[in-house]
Amino acid sequence: MATIGDICMAAAINILSAFAFFVAFAILRLQPFNDRVYFPKWYLKGIRSSPTHSGGSVKKFVNLDCRTYIKFLSWMPAALKMPEPELIDHAGFDSAMYIRIYLLGLKIFVPLSVLAFVVLVPVNVTGRYLDHRKDLTFSDLDKLSISNIPPGSQRFWAHLTMAYVFTFWTCYTLYKEYKLVTSKRLRFLASQSRRPDQFTVLVRNVPPDPDESVSQHVEHFFSVNHPNHYLTHQAEEAPEMDKVTFSKRAPFVSSDQNVVIFDPTGRECRRRSEANQQRRSTREGEVVYNANNLSNIVDKRKSLQNWLDYYENKYRRNSVTRPTTKTGFWGLWGTSVDAIDYYNAEIDKLLNKEATERERVISDTKAIIPAAFVSFKTRWGAAVCAQTQQSSNPTLWLTEWAPEPRDVYWPNLAIPFVELTIRRLLMAVSLFFLTFFFMFPIAIVQSLANLEGIEKVLPFLKPVIEIHTIKSFVQGFLPGIALKIFLIILPTILMTMSKIEGFTSLSLLERRSAGKYYLFILVNVFLGSIITGTAFQNLNVLLHESASEVPVTIGVSIPMKATFFITYIMVDGWAGIAAEILRIKPLIVFHLKNAFLVKTEKDREQAMDPGSLGYATAEPRIQLYFLLGLVYSVITPFFLPFIVIFFGLSYLVFRHQIINVYNQEYESGAAFWPDVQRRVITAMIIAQLLLLGLISTMNAANSTPVLLALPVLTIWFHIYCKHRFEPAFVKFPLQDAMVKDTLERATEPNFDLKTYLQDAYIHPVFRKHGCDLPLVVGDEENILVPTKRNSRMNTPGESKRGSDREDTEN
Amino acid sequence: MATIGDICMAAAINILSAFAFFVAFAILRLQPFNDRVYFPKWYLKGIRSSPTHSGGSVKKFVNLDCRTYIKFLSWMPAALKMPEPELIDHAGFDSAMYIRIYLLGLKIFVPLSVLAFVVLVPVNVTGRYLDHRKDLTFSDLDKLSISNIPPGSQRFWAHLTMAYVFTFWTCYTLYKEYKLVTSKRLRFLASQSRRPDQFTVLVRNVPPDPDESVSQHVEHFFSVNHPNHYLTHQAEEAPEMDKVTFSKRAPFVSSDQNVVIFDPTGRECRRRSEANQQRRSTREGEVVYNANNLSNIVDKRKSLQNWLDYYENKYRRNSVTRPTTKTGFWGLWGTSVDAIDYYNAEIDKLLNKEATERERVISDTKAIIPAAFVSFKTRWGAAVCAQTQQSSNPTLWLTEWAPEPRDVYWPNLAIPFVELTIRRLLMAVSLFFLTFFFMFPIAIVQSLANLEGIEKVLPFLKPVIEIHTIKSFVQGFLPGIALKIFLIILPTILMTMSKIEGFTSLSLLERRSAGKYYLFILVNVFLGSIITGTAFQNLNVLLHESASEVPVTIGVSIPMKATFFITYIMVDGWAGIAAEILRIKPLIVFHLKNAFLVKTEKDREQAMDPGSLGYATAEPRIQLYFLLGLVYSVITPFFLPFIVIFFGLSYLVFRHQIINVYNQEYESGAAFWPDVQRRVITAMIIAQLLLLGLISTMNAANSTPVLLALPVLTIWFHIYCKHRFEPAFVKFPLQDAMVKDTLERATEPNFDLKTYLQDAYIHPVFRKHGCDLPLVVGDEENILVPTKRNSRMNTPGESKRGSDREDTEN
Repeated sequence: MATIGDICMAAAINILSAFAFFVAFAILRLQPFNDRVYFPKWYLKGIRSSPTHSGGSVKKFVNLDCRTYIKFLSWMPAALKMPEPELIDHAGFDSAMYIRIYLLGLKIFVPLSVLAFVVLVPVNVTGRYLDHRKDLTFSDLDKLSISNIPPGSQRFWAHLTMAYVFTFWTCYTLYKEYKLVTSKRLRFLASQSRRPDQFTVLVRNVPPDPDESVSQHVEHFFSVNHPNHYLTHQAEEAPEMDKVTFSKRAPFVSSDQNVVIFDPTGRECRRRSEANQQRRSTREGEVVYNANNLSNIVDKRKSLQNWLDYYENKYRRNSVTRPTTKTGFWGLWGTSVDAIDYYNAEIDKLLNKEATERERVISDTKAIIPAAFVSFKTRWGAAVCAQTQQSSNPTLWLTEWAPEPRDVYWPNLAIPFVELTIRRLLMAVSLFFLTFFFMFPIAIVQSLANLEGIEKVLPFLKPVIEIHTIKSFVQGFLPGIALKIFLIILPTILMTMSKIEGFTSLSLLERRSAGKYYLFILVNVFLGSIITGTAFQNLNVLLHESASEVPVTIGVSIPMKATFFITYIMVDGWAGIAAEILRIKPLIVFHLKNAFLVKTEKDREQAMDPGSLGYATAEPRIQLYFLLGLVYSVITPFFLPFIVIFFGLSYLVFRHQIINVYNQEYESGAAFWPDVQRRVITAMIIAQLLLLGLISTMNAANSTPVLLALPVLTIWFHIYCKHRFEPAFVKFPLQDAMVKDTLERATEPNFDLKTYLQDAYIHPVFRKHGCDLPLVVGDEENILVPTKRNSRMNTPGESKRGSDREDTEN
Repeated sequence: MATIGDICMAAAINILSAFAFFVAFAILRLQPFNDRVYFPKWYLKGIRSSPTHSGGSVKKFVNLDCRTYIKFLSWMPAALKMPEPELIDHAGFDSAMYIRIYLLGLKIFVPLSVLAFVVLVPVNVTGRYLDHRKDLTFSDLDKLSISNIPPGSQRFWAHLTMAYVFTFWTCYTLYKEYKLVTSKRLRFLASQSRRPDQFTVLVRNVPPDPDESVSQHVEHFFSVNHPNHYLTHQAEEAPEMDKVTFSKRAPFVSSDQNVVIFDPTGRECRRRSEANQQRRSTREGEVVYNANNLSNIVDKRKSLQNWLDYYENKYRRNSVTRPTTKTGFWGLWGTSVDAIDYYNAEIDKLLNKEATERERVISDTKAIIPAAFVSFKTRWGAAVCAQTQQSSNPTLWLTEWAPEPRDVYWPNLAIPFVELTIRRLLMAVSLFFLTFFFMFPIAIVQSLANLEGIEKVLPFLKPVIEIHTIKSFVQGFLPGIALKIFLIILPTILMTMSKIEGFTSLSLLERRSAGKYYLFILVNVFLGSIITGTAFQNLNVLLHESASEVPVTIGVSIPMKATFFITYIMVDGWAGIAAEILRIKPLIVFHLKNAFLVKTEKDREQAMDPGSLGYATAEPRIQLYFLLGLVYSVITPFFLPFIVIFFGLSYLVFRHQIINVYNQEYESGAAFWPDVQRRVITAMIIAQLLLLGLISTMNAANSTPVLLALPVLTIWFHIYCKHRFEPAFVKFPLQDAMVKDTLERATEPNFDLKTYLQDAYIHPVFRKHGCDLPLVVGDEENILVPTKRNSRMNTPGESKRGSDREDTEN
């Protein structure tokens, strides 16, 4: 087993490799041609528009200024410099609160480390139990751990006391942090400028009515049941109103036409008619169309457009031969045709199809799904509608806060209630099987994919396979590949499952996927590593053990696995974080796109992929470190510094990333925090039960009742916090709504809310009406002449609407 | 073991004894002097005012008309005759829905019995496994059960199929019943005439404000945050308003004075000042006083009043010597004094104390607790306020539907939020210990109470105890007495625990007590009888068995315990129900009171104790029969007819009781039904798991996966029903509120709601202001001249307010 020296050596190697990553990052980020990879956020904000160093053509791509290389770690203090309020403005509230999870980790584990080293390490070292047990194999590490205490010793009281102290400290920190995040959230919501979702409620399961359309039915229902608050529905047949809308929207249309200039295929006339159709859809008000089919067509057309760009670029660089392509699958076979003509023709075909489909969607009453975004005159009215039950049948007229427009997940708005419950049942069962039985299909694939299997299925490959080097390579490689592929696509599978479950906002989808991923990590990484078996085997073991034995079985293996998890933290945690900052994949993708697809500056903007934090996979991974830290805090104190370094490094790196790189896709106001809190508390309870199991084997039976109180108190703490803080994340208090309404009525008495909300909730395919306009363009147009009100919220989807509003207000 | 013959014999004996009870009931109920015991409901309704048979003095007490005795079972069809809508009017919605639980039992178990006897009994009988096993002791009963199937037989598929069919049928019935009860509830709420709780919201945890009183703070908060809906708060210093109130309330005061005539102690002047004080409290509006201390004094005075009545009666019958009493504890020792003078003096002392306390409560600002009943102009406004969060701190300004005025549990309105969560934690821990460890204190008491213990503590009793007959009697009696006493006071303990938990309405208190009692019965009666051990021993066994073994351990004992539970059903169920109708305890109490305390007809009304259904203990007992029926339905079909007879008999008897006897204390609109549904589903899942455990021991392992799907599907069904129906029991849909508001505005545009709601929520000690007026008196006054609007709701608390309303309206 590894000695402390071994571990310190490994740690040193890992620190050095992390350092190497940072050096590489420092060099790469200073090169102007990488600027859009490492600072995309600033481009999106419109503050940075061209590489910082202009000059000679070489200097445009490579930074030759040596002085800048000397201060290669200067990004670290820079990342910490930005104060939090500014960070919230700059990177969004979600991101700013997300990195507070790392801060929470530091707040919990730094004092825990200090206490553990001051109190528990001396107690353990002087236990000297292992010195007398020559029959056992143990390492230096074990001498610092609880294993060094002789069974039945009074020294266990030190561990019990520290278990209480640690629990108290963790709860205290969690409470303070929850309180802080809650008040920050409320302040954020209160300080925000006008947003459509503040006035809007998503209504689902509108019951069918034989005499009225969905739109009429919604209008009648809400004008009857919320008479003073419902913002009157737009009339469908009012032509003069349409004209007004048109003239008001003129600036927007013209900005649209500005973009058309870049368009090489002359689809302008068609787009004009589409714009008219969009306006027609606007007149329908907030009723939602089932445009899933349409958006598929749009997506397909966009991918063809990419190919067209690629071939046009190719042709431009080499004007001698026109590029050709093959008509078959992925251009691999079929007849050879002129590529530019072919793709132009294909795109035109799809555009026709798209127009037909668009026409069909708008005219077909069946495409109007029984859901609507209902807007109210005041935030108070919306808050009331979102929190109350409308109909005596609670499965109809379901109301909930409308997500932000860019947060809406459109395909899921149409699912009826019964179908929804069945979908959730199926997904719950699937999740169970996925978590516990995922090894079975992989084992089958592995057994098929071994050499004998391949030889049987594809006998003609036999001579190739029999070559010795290939054989050994395949044998070493194949068994792992199925598992690796599975683990890579797992987040996508989980996200698909969440989508099937029918949640209506991206933020909720991410949160639910994170929950599933957490379960998977807990069972397969944590338990799987401790009991050492597949999840199914472990499930079998756990089912056949009694409730009182399970914590014992797992608890006694905990100290033995300390070395393994320390290595895990260093390789997965430290190195992973250091690699995160290099952004190798976006770097490669950007330069590939730059080489093949980019024609204009606008295209380069598009090629730049800032990405986002990826809450669904990142948060559960952090939670694993919380769990490990809490489990080992009492048992193996030597473990804690590794956790502290992980949290410190992560905080630094992710603070840098959200400032310079990541672009938040939506704003949920840190709606994920209750999940974070709940999972840390779950980790605490697991840690307490495992400690209980471990200590009960050490002849310290009289101390177990003392430990039994801990989980009870922790659960009580959880319930208390849930009642105290969670409503702030799901409901909107009427008092705050009223304050904001009153303030706004006083400052802007003549504001035309109806016009403002007009286009807020339109399906993106109607919004972007067939032009692959990057949202960023509208954004930049907006930012270059920043207005006071817009300077706060200028992430893409938002600012697009921001510019609409500016237009309509003028 | 018992043969089928034995069981049939026992059943016959039980049926005969039940029949004897019915005969006794028939004889007793026909005696005029028992009339108030067996038909109190009709007295309360004012329809029956004197024994039906008037005539000679003997005939006033004994019914000599032989013809009436012949049709001694005539009450049975009479009980079934009343149609349900009339029953709801007559006995209240809660009671009418409560007996539907028995109907639900019939609906589930009658088809189950038929199916089980048609399908499973033949399959079991022809299994003939037990015929070849001479080594086993078994009874005829086992031949009809699943034990008669040889292990590994294909016959188990019949049981599996029936398990699915039974589950399906039970779910179907539950679904239909839930749907029916929900729609009945909604119709009931919609059809109800105006009630104060429809417009009122209970606000708790009003935050303290340094500048304003609670009353002002409430008024400001709600007039700001619910500006168009809040019913303006009554002005505290408006003297002319007070005068108006006074003159309007004159009829009520005079009716009050009418009653004063009966009062022998001349406390009229004091009462007048109290009435003024009451009016002053009325002016404070809906703010709630902490009058717990005051109501204790009132209670104490009432018990003294009883003693005074007793001695006055004694003196009236025997006018020679004035009765004397002793001043010490319970009149057992102390100096001897004239009883009537003594009690008069004591009562006067208490009246003084009461007046001081009343003054203190009203003038002391600290006695105003941070809770208020806030009324709104419309039902819509109240529905909105009750369902929304008011403040950004979710532990302040907690709003919920106000319970009916007579349903409010006043002492619990003042508990702060943090204290509430701590109380709930403590009670949860206590409940756990009560359920699993209750045998420990009882065993200690038992060991103290044995003869050696008594001899040690009280050596002078030794000669008495040594007498043989006494010794054997005590030894046979003592060990059981502690347990028996515990079981008798258990419902009180559970109710006290619920009160400590801080629920604010009687209906909720009863529901929570029922939940606790159900847990107790499930663990101690059901599991305790099957595993045969104390709950603690069983807990120990279960903790040390694996999760997959627990259902097996319990499952295999199930068939062996069939005889025991059949006997249990006959003794506890059948005989208990038959005894229920005799009302032995109220019969005795009534005649005792009649003999010693009753002076006037009014006192006799008071001596009459209709009682109420006792949901907190009765419902969990029914659930035990659901559980037993579902568990044995597949395993021992012979069990089912006993369950069916229980439900049939109960339905009949309780329908009779709610028509003729019980007086519903409050109206919650069948808010208990979700609990009923949940517990039946719990029983289903327990039954499925036990069947799974049993069958897995019978070498039918390939069938267990088929059974595993059942609990999953059942849980899904539960979640579906919960979402579909439960909101109707906790929320009030805005659409319905709006319909009712609109209707009322159209029919009564000038109704003065403010005056109507004025006195609705006043602490009962202020309402009854020191006079031990029975609520019934006001009720009867009201009923004798029934008005159209009042004829529907004339249970006591309600009609009292009804009369107020009448007065204020005139």
